[in-house]
Amino acid sequence: MPKYEVLSKEAAKAELEALRAAYNEKKALGLRLDMSRGKPCPKQLDLSEGLLDAKLLNPPTTESGFDCRNYGLLDGIPEAKRLFGEMLNVPAEQVIVCGNSSLQIMYDLVQDIVTNAGGEPIRWLCPVPGYDRHFSILESFGIEMIPIPMRSGGPDMSLVEQYCRDERVKGLICVPKYSNPEGTTYTEEVVRRFAALQPSARDFRVIWDNAYCVHDLYKEAEPLANVLALAKAAGTEDRFLEVTSFSKISFPGAGISCIAASPANIAAIKKRMNIQTISYDKLNQLRHVRYFKNVSGVSAHMKKHASILRPKFEAVLDILERDLSEPGFASWSQPRGGYFISLNILTGTAKRTYTRCVEAGVTLTPAGATYPLGHDPEDKNLRIAPTYPSLEELQAAAGLLCLCAKIAALEVMIA
Amino acid sequence: MPKYEVLSKEAAKAELEALRAAYNEKKALGLRLDMSRGKPCPKQLDLSEGLLDAKLLNPPTTESGFDCRNYGLLDGIPEAKRLFGEMLNVPAEQVIVCGNSSLQIMYDLVQDIVTNAGGEPIRWLCPVPGYDRHFSILESFGIEMIPIPMRSGGPDMSLVEQYCRDERVKGLICVPKYSNPEGTTYTEEVVRRFAALQPSARDFRVIWDNAYCVHDLYKEAEPLANVLALAKAAGTEDRFLEVTSFSKISFPGAGISCIAASPANIAAIKKRMNIQTISYDKLNQLRHVRYFKNVSGVSAHMKKHASILRPKFEAVLDILERDLSEPGFASWSQPRGGYFISLNILTGTAKRTYTRCVEAGVTLTPAGATYPLGHDPEDKNLRIAPTYPSLEELQAAAGLLCLCAKIAALEVMIA
Repeated sequence: MPKYEVLSKEAAKAELEALRAAYNEKKALGLRLDMSRGKPCPKQLDLSEGLLDAKLLNPPTTESGFDCRNYGLLDGIPEAKRLFGEMLNVPAEQVIVCGNSSLQIMYDLVQDIVTNAGGEPIRWLCPVPGYDRHFSILESFGIEMIPIPMRSGGPDMSLVEQYCRDERVKGLICVPKYSNPEGTTYTEEVVRRFAALQPSARDFRVIWDNAYCVHDLYKEAEPLANVLALAKAAGTEDRFLEVTSFSKISFPGAGISCIAASPANIAAIKKRMNIQTISYDKLNQLRHVRYFKNVSGVSAHMKKHASILRPKFEAVLDILERDLSEPGFASWSQPRGGYFISLNILTGTAKRTYTRCVEAGVTLTPAGATYPLGHDPEDKNLRIAPTYPSLEELQAAAGLLCLCAKIAALEVMIA
Repeated sequence: MPKYEVLSKEAAKAELEALRAAYNEKKALGLRLDMSRGKPCPKQLDLSEGLLDAKLLNPPTTESGFDCRNYGLLDGIPEAKRLFGEMLNVPAEQVIVCGNSSLQIMYDLVQDIVTNAGGEPIRWLCPVPGYDRHFSILESFGIEMIPIPMRSGGPDMSLVEQYCRDERVKGLICVPKYSNPEGTTYTEEVVRRFAALQPSARDFRVIWDNAYCVHDLYKEAEPLANVLALAKAAGTEDRFLEVTSFSKISFPGAGISCIAASPANIAAIKKRMNIQTISYDKLNQLRHVRYFKNVSGVSAHMKKHASILRPKFEAVLDILERDLSEPGFASWSQPRGGYFISLNILTGTAKRTYTRCVEAGVTLTPAGATYPLGHDPEDKNLRIAPTYPSLEELQAAAGLLCLCAKIAALEVMIA
């Protein structure tokens, strides 16, 4: 099969007929497959079974003798601060350990910025394609989102620098390692340009959502430069708010999360947090530290996740290669970590491809979700989440996705 | 010893000298006692040891088969919604189960109201004496707090009704059962008047912090009328946001909490919550439900707490009676549940009594803390938290407090 763009109209029509017949056959199978969300599969959850052992909490006291069952230690138990500090390469004093959700931390950070802006209209920069839940937070506060295209090693930094001259631009939110959805890790040069930013807005903040800091699929991790260290050297450390969590290390929804930031930001956040709550769940913090011990323990655990996930990612990539390389209208990311594969198909066909998939029982993240307000201006990006389904389900689902993408491409080409 | 107010100046001076000598003796002991916060004591925490048993989470699935280790079930697992529903006498569908902190829920509810007010100055009503952390939340958003004096069966409702005519008055926050610090339970008449309120502000909200809903010290619980049911009957149910938690049932900081509200409010809160987080810690919800089972299980457990706490409350009350009844300048609450005793001493002496206690090693909640902005206009209220210290420590601390109160009273009377 040659590239679609060189097919004669007759050949294209014949191919479309054949693909539609194949689609109808698949549709008749009544599939129920879900590649929509970045959820660990049950086998991954089983890896952390030992975390629930009651012995881990005996005694229920920190190394300093503090009873984790009672109120207190607002910023987290010392050993959990140290563990996150090791994971992010940040001093433990610059870490606040929170509850189960880094999303909730980010919501709160954004809301605080909005509250301080006192009703003035504000703008944030959003690398695209990006994480739909980030965009939802900004949207919920009526923040104008300015899309910044992703390049091979991170966002288009010239554009970021240019927009930063606008003092209405108050922030940027991103996933700097194994980005959602492309799996891109920002290069050191990009991170240095972040650290060197000179925004007009003095209260400009970057939310550095390091969700996949230890989520490598292969032995060689892609290194991410330490933004807080570089920013400290550049005198801009107050501009960065880094977050991460154990949601995809232990249990989604029953893990622990943290904020890492400059001493000034940590002090300001603790002051506000002291009004918000008395303390987070320290028993769960203690459980995590006793089970994972240190960053080596976390790394060993992540290798087990990788051995479950790698075959799934590779199965999808194999099928994309098998089905979409010859037609030539698609391109996709080859992530070495994280939770997603980003697929770009023919311009103007993502929505109809999505709809056709759903009609045949394959749920995907909705087309457009990787852009602010759900608006992909080229209507071409789809996010694939390969972690939850079994290998067999995944192969069936990916095959069907390719089929739908090809049908949509031919429909548009012929029209 | 006759009442202080009828003492001759000479007799008062002699008494003051004797009390000062006694105080200096106590001070020389170098005590370190803390009656400042409503913290359970270690023996109370031991009551819930079984909650950490890993067997409780086997299998880790809800009754409907949902895996609690993974994302999902934003509003809580069905069995936890039912348990809270039983405790508050509210349909399970009108409950959202959250994380470990009802304070965090309240902060969020207030912040949402502030965000919607769009910078307009707003006022809230605060029954006084009240809970310092409630006041801190309102203060942190610059909300003007209007104190409403507590009467024997709840706040002065005529005053509440009167202030409700002011459309800048947007809310009221209170602890309706075993109130903090007086231990007052609102009478059915008071609750009915709450349900019947006709505030000018259409977005007026009452945060009904039912923190001590099952925290009885004696066999006969003081009944609290069901505000959501009465409000539903009165057509005002959208006005009430009820919260509670297991902080003082299982573990402070490692319990579970909830919001109960009208169907319209639950829908609105869930919509916002869907932006804030993916789900709360469902493993901890499951642990709690499997351990406590139902409202009878909770009641049985609370009887064990009561048997630890009752002697402590009674020891403090005995000492107040022994030391302060004859001098005649003080009055105090006789709570039948909750976590505090409220002590009113001679007008103008709470601050100096507090300072003198601290100087002798007895930490109390700071004088004034039970009023908005820490301002007790009569400078006479002190909050005693008798739960954490041992019985012996408590007796020593309460004795010293009475001594300091008497010294301060005589100093003011003589001056």
